Amino acid sequence: MLDAGALDTLFRHARTHDGWLDRPVSDEQLHQIYELMKMGPTSANSCPARIVFVRSRQAKERLRPALSEGNLEKTMAAPVTAIIGFDLKFYDRLPDLFPHNPEARSWFADDPKSAELAAFRNGTLQGAYFILAARAVGLDCGPMSGFDNAKVDAEFFQETYVKSNFLCNLGYGDSNRLFPRGPRLGFEEVCVVL
Amino acid sequence: MLDAGALDTLFRHARTHDGWLDRPVSDEQLHQIYELMKMGPTSANSCPARIVFVRSRQAKERLRPALSEGNLEKTMAAPVTAIIGFDLKFYDRLPDLFPHNPEARSWFADDPKSAELAAFRNGTLQGAYFILAARAVGLDCGPMSGFDNAKVDAEFFQETYVKSNFLCNLGYGDSNRLFPRGPRLGFEEVCVVL
Repeated sequence: MLDAGALDTLFRHARTHDGWLDRPVSDEQLHQIYELMKMGPTSANSCPARIVFVRSRQAKERLRPALSEGNLEKTMAAPVTAIIGFDLKFYDRLPDLFPHNPEARSWFADDPKSAELAAFRNGTLQGAYFILAARAVGLDCGPMSGFDNAKVDAEFFQETYVKSNFLCNLGYGDSNRLFPRGPRLGFEEVCVVL
Repeated sequence: MLDAGALDTLFRHARTHDGWLDRPVSDEQLHQIYELMKMGPTSANSCPARIVFVRSRQAKERLRPALSEGNLEKTMAAPVTAIIGFDLKFYDRLPDLFPHNPEARSWFADDPKSAELAAFRNGTLQGAYFILAARAVGLDCGPMSGFDNAKVDAEFFQETYVKSNFLCNLGYGDSNRLFPRGPRLGFEEVCVVL
C-alpha cells in the first residue's frame, strides 16, 4: 500500500488547477510523465494515445481559436497544454505491441466501429494515467473537454488518423486561486457488492 | 515527486494478472479503492462511473454467460470482478456535484449525444483511476474489454441508465503465471513537443 503522502499527491489533496505559477515545465518532466503513463494497461497492449505538448507561444496561438471562452485565459497562461488524442489506426502497431497474437490487428482493422471504440476507451484510460503520472512527478493538472475538437484536429492532426480527446494544462498550480473542492458521491450511491 | 517504490507499484512493476492467489479481497479494500478513485477529476465533476463488485459465487455465475472464452476461467477464479459502468443520466446529479453552476445539468440533459460522450469519456477516466487506486492499496488488477456488454447490461443494469464499460478482476496476482511484459511505444512515436 502506498503511504499517505503519495495517496494525497495522487488523489486526496490533488486539485484541478485554473491558476498557474510562473514556473516552467521541462522536457525532462514531459519525458518522465510519458515513461510512467506508457506502462498503464490497455486492451491488447494497444496504446492508442497520442500526445501533442503545446508549450511555445507560437503553438499556443495555434490552439487559441479552438478554446472555449471559459478555458481560454487559463490555457494560454499554462506552462504546457497537452492535447491528448487517440489514433484510429492504432492497430497498425499491434504486430509490434502484441506480438504473441498475430491476428490481433485484424480484430480492429476489419471492424472500424470496434477500432474507434477501442481507440477512445483505451486512449481515455491512458489520458487518466497521464493525469496521475503528472501528479506523481510533482506537477499539477488542469484537464478539460471544453474546446472545439474539429478545430484542434484540423490544426494539429491533419493528414493523420489521430483525433483529439481532451486537453490537460500542466504546471505548478496557484493554490490561492482554487475554488472549494466539489463534493463526491458516496460509496453506496455508486457501488454495489454482490 | 513520489518515491521509486510508489512509481513501481502504480506503473513500472505493476502487471495485468491472469492468475490469482487464493486470498480474498475485503469490503474494506473495496471501500478504500472507491474513496481514492472518487477524487479523480471529471468534466464538471460529473462522476458518471457506477460499479458492481461481483464477489459471491452466485453473482459470478450471473456474469459467466457474458464472458468471452479467453476471459472465462481467470474471471471466474478472481476474488472479485468489478463491472465498471457509466450512467447515461449522470447529469441528474450535477445540481449536487456542481452546485456553483445551476445550468450544468442542461448542457447534457438537452443533448443526449453530448451526454453519452461525456459519460463514456469520464466514466473511462474513472475506470483508470480505479485501476491505479486498486494498485495503490496493494491489489493487482486484470482489466478487460472482452465480454458481451449487452448481456452484462441486461443482467446487472436492467431498468437503469447504466451501461457497462469494462471489467476489472481484483485480487493478489500469481506472479508465476505472468507472461513477459509487452513492449511500449517510445516517446518520439507518441509525443510531439511544439
